Amino acid sequence: MITERILKSELAAKVITPAQAAAFFKDKMVVASSGFTKAGDSKAVLTALAERAKLDPLKVTLITGASLGHGTDGILADAHAISLRLPFQVDTIMRRAINSGEVLFIDQHLGETANLLKANNFPKIDIAILEAICIEQDGSIVPTTSVGNSASFAALADKIIIEINTEIPFSLKGVHDIFSPGDYPDRREIPIVNAASRIGQGTIPLDTDKIIGIVFTNIKDSPADIAPQDEVTAVIARHIVDFFTTEVEKGNLTNSLLPLQAGIGKVANAVLRGFLESDFEGLTMYSEVLQDSTFDLLDSGKMTFASGSSITVSSDYYEHIFNDFSIYKDKIVLRPQDISNAAEVIRRLGVIAINTALECDIYGNVNSTHIAGTNMMNGIGGSGDFARNSYLSIFVTQSVAKNETISRIVPMVSHVDHTEHDVDIIVTEHGLADLRGLAPRQRAEVIIEHCAHPDYKAELKSYFDRACARGGHTPHLLEEAFSWYTSLRQHGTMKPVSAEKVEFRA
Amino acid sequence: MITERILKSELAAKVITPAQAAAFFKDKMVVASSGFTKAGDSKAVLTALAERAKLDPLKVTLITGASLGHGTDGILADAHAISLRLPFQVDTIMRRAINSGEVLFIDQHLGETANLLKANNFPKIDIAILEAICIEQDGSIVPTTSVGNSASFAALADKIIIEINTEIPFSLKGVHDIFSPGDYPDRREIPIVNAASRIGQGTIPLDTDKIIGIVFTNIKDSPADIAPQDEVTAVIARHIVDFFTTEVEKGNLTNSLLPLQAGIGKVANAVLRGFLESDFEGLTMYSEVLQDSTFDLLDSGKMTFASGSSITVSSDYYEHIFNDFSIYKDKIVLRPQDISNAAEVIRRLGVIAINTALECDIYGNVNSTHIAGTNMMNGIGGSGDFARNSYLSIFVTQSVAKNETISRIVPMVSHVDHTEHDVDIIVTEHGLADLRGLAPRQRAEVIIEHCAHPDYKAELKSYFDRACARGGHTPHLLEEAFSWYTSLRQHGTMKPVSAEKVEFRA
Ligand SMILES: CC(C)(COP(=O)(O)OP(=O)(O)OC[C@H]1O[C@@H](n2cnc3c(N)ncnc32)[C@H](O)[C@@H]1OP(=O)(O)O)[C@@H](O)C(=O)NCCC(=O)NCCS
Ligand SMILES: CC(C)(COP(=O)(O)OP(=O)(O)OC[C@H]1O[C@@H](n2cnc3c(N)ncnc32)[C@H](O)[C@@H]1OP(=O)(O)O)[C@@H](O)C(=O)NCCC(=O)NCCS
Repeated sequence: MITERILKSELAAKVITPAQAAAFFKDKMVVASSGFTKAGDSKAVLTALAERAKLDPLKVTLITGASLGHGTDGILADAHAISLRLPFQVDTIMRRAINSGEVLFIDQHLGETANLLKANNFPKIDIAILEAICIEQDGSIVPTTSVGNSASFAALADKIIIEINTEIPFSLKGVHDIFSPGDYPDRREIPIVNAASRIGQGTIPLDTDKIIGIVFTNIKDSPADIAPQDEVTAVIARHIVDFFTTEVEKGNLTNSLLPLQAGIGKVANAVLRGFLESDFEGLTMYSEVLQDSTFDLLDSGKMTFASGSSITVSSDYYEHIFNDFSIYKDKIVLRPQDISNAAEVIRRLGVIAINTALECDIYGNVNSTHIAGTNMMNGIGGSGDFARNSYLSIFVTQSVAKNETISRIVPMVSHVDHTEHDVDIIVTEHGLADLRGLAPRQRAEVIIEHCAHPDYKAELKSYFDRACARGGHTPHLLEEAFSWYTSLRQHGTMKPVSAEKVEFRA
Repeated sequence: MITERILKSELAAKVITPAQAAAFFKDKMVVASSGFTKAGDSKAVLTALAERAKLDPLKVTLITGASLGHGTDGILADAHAISLRLPFQVDTIMRRAINSGEVLFIDQHLGETANLLKANNFPKIDIAILEAICIEQDGSIVPTTSVGNSASFAALADKIIIEINTEIPFSLKGVHDIFSPGDYPDRREIPIVNAASRIGQGTIPLDTDKIIGIVFTNIKDSPADIAPQDEVTAVIARHIVDFFTTEVEKGNLTNSLLPLQAGIGKVANAVLRGFLESDFEGLTMYSEVLQDSTFDLLDSGKMTFASGSSITVSSDYYEHIFNDFSIYKDKIVLRPQDISNAAEVIRRLGVIAINTALECDIYGNVNSTHIAGTNMMNGIGGSGDFARNSYLSIFVTQSVAKNETISRIVPMVSHVDHTEHDVDIIVTEHGLADLRGLAPRQRAEVIIEHCAHPDYKAELKSYFDRACARGGHTPHLLEEAFSWYTSLRQHGTMKPVSAEKVEFRA
């Protein structure tokens, strides 16, 4: 097995156990790990690091591509092993540690982390842990189910630990396309001209002298949690398909649209499924995460090519895809996240971006990250990279949350991740607001009319009318703009509570 | 004169008066005009249109590159000739009409207007008015002191009126570099690899059959209002020069830094002047507007090349520069604004972006546009194009406004144009906050400590501490976050008013 997976034979001597690898870490180190939306993450070494931290306390900075699987973020947070985390996470325990202030978190555009590291905006990476299928004769590595920031980590880290995952079939080799735009001031173009462009090499080059250990694992990626499609998400998907059908009829787009990007979450997955029942053909994807729905579209023949930075699918799909990956070999490419999310490429290809909002306001500003303006959910992820630079930026959201006590269309969002400039279309189960070419006051009317839940429409309209009476380009009543959150805190609902009830509570 | 300026001789028959040109416009038309930060704008036809509107009411949509000179926006607003305005303006009268709701305004990233027009996000342009030095034999035109969106307008408009400005010397010919990345889905790379790259042609191609009139003018551009440098702006400039000196010492940057961008406003101009007294050499600029300070830097030899979309200078500089433009011919290039502000190029070159904020909050979110979250000032301009994609994004602002009654560092900005992700450094006269690699709670400490005015520091600190006690990744007290604006409305100051005084007023 070792000789099969380590083709540069002198490196075989570096094979160690996860516990031995964990011993390399020291307090205050900056640690980088492969992993992007639960795919291709470190499965053995980070867990061993958490084990060690329980006995021998230490705290490190942890930088990844995006989220980790197997509850690793939670295990590390529970072991109090993390002082600073970036650029994204989706873990309940880690989230709690971040919101309590125990773990500092830097929420970053996923396309920018590599740039910021190269610009010396962070301390140097001490150790990078990179999951790989194998080490080639030239010492370069073949990544697994994600590329994420691994190529940048390999270039920038002082020392490297490789996790060879024997569970990942060799057939995945060739799906990766590793390219670096170079360093300032001599960066060059990223010559991608369509989703299928291959511009780099199949492996991540690295200086094997940096390798301090090689660990073997055989653990699959965590499966994606795919919520079953429900009526609400199906309706949202239909609104979007109808919208594109009309755009094609108008001659604004052809029947193969432009490359699609879809964010994480059940709504985004449902929306992509919606395209299965559409008349579109020859679709392509230029996205971050290739999900179950991507493979449905490829299988159906409706999609011809999908570019991403990771493959994150549910268990059934995992079996299906990796059983015979050769079917997908020429239909998929996995890229570094500074390429999959590059402003340059997203704008050039004219990507159609579909992301999920926690809440939107009446002027079309979007909050993707902060519950009630304060508590971090996951992070902005790639939503900003895509929303800003896309041909069309669509945000989807259910109109309410938590049993209708929360309206996800509010007078003013409690935190802004995407400004109105970067939001073209908002869709809820109640309808689609096409905001293109509209000024703020017009946007408000369309959003309230098409997207708000009926129980909140009158209050939104009242706020907007009273704000307009006071005036301004973007009319607001600042003293009242956040009163819905105060209501929620005090009365458990954003719905107007009758005067009597308020008195009683007070 | 006509034969000198109209080299395609059969077009000479199309020469008309401004009043005749004004007669072409009809109610509800979409009109586009050249002009970027007061340079190269329509001087005769738009004014004639305003005259006509007074007698024969009509309302049009007006799209430009950026702001117009000669009070034209105000003249048009006074004549009630505008229903919708985009993407930027700086006029007192127009601003009032926008904030009252009489004129609808779409505030846009200046790098995106051309993309949005090409993506059919707006109705078709009926008539474009383009200022030119001359019409070449092949029918293409040489723009004047700005390029702005003129090349896109020429391609997209149904009909075209040319304003030949005989005041602009022929020597400016050759300074323009017109390039289009093409149309979806076949857009290609913008092959600029440094500020001085020339990638296109010297003139704007157009279909001369679209020309419905040619008007002659001899009116200079409006001069830039340059506020005299004062102690406050000089101190801000010194903080920035000191910061870069340290970055060079650390080896993060070379002595020629990376290409500079500087926004509009007196602070930005003062900051560029600050580089005159620095030890940096071989500086370049990749910006939008070339201001007085750009020419000082070129004259001093400290700057070797400047790329922009317009030349907007004060009267003295105007004389100096255009008297013998040959000195600058190989040191300057003027580009279309979708190229000067292209995300692709800004990121590739690693531009250092310096823009002005109306206000910043303790977490580093920036408001560039909305006074008290409501009233439009000018527009986001190019600040978002640069802040998002730059190597370093710096925002400068005085710590207070209006006689210290307003703190420009606030608990939560009343409108977000640039999220914390896109803001690396904030500078006021009190100091520089280097936010790179910091999480929100750390950012707050540094911003309050280094940037806030002493009179507001204790209140900011109190807000932050109390918010932290409640918890969260980005601690806020939503019920109090905007109380400073309410104070300002009620008591004329953001400073805490003693209880007694409040009682008295209430
Ligand atoms: C925004 C985001 C959290 C939505 O995820 P989702 O799974 O589709 O959203 P849901 O509607 O199921 O909401 C998730 C949870 O937040 C709660 N929630 C949603 N909106 C809320 C609001 N405005 N206030 C409070 N809670 C809210 C929901 O009730 C739900 O909690 P529950 O499961 O306990 O009921 C997710 O898309 C995200 O993290 N986006 C940012 C990153 C990104 O966009 N990446 C895209 C490129 S990868
Ligand atoms: C933000 C911007 C308006 C600042 O301009 P400036 O001239 O440097 O700013 P000043 O500090 O002189 O402030 C301008 C006015 O706003 C007022 N002001 C500033 N901050 C304020 C605040 N927070 N609340 C209320 N008024 C404020 C000032 O008092 C001043 O008014 P006055 O002249 O009547 O006293 C200007 O830079 C801008 O429009 N930026 C957005 C576009 C942009 O950044 N383009 C960059 C690429 S071109």
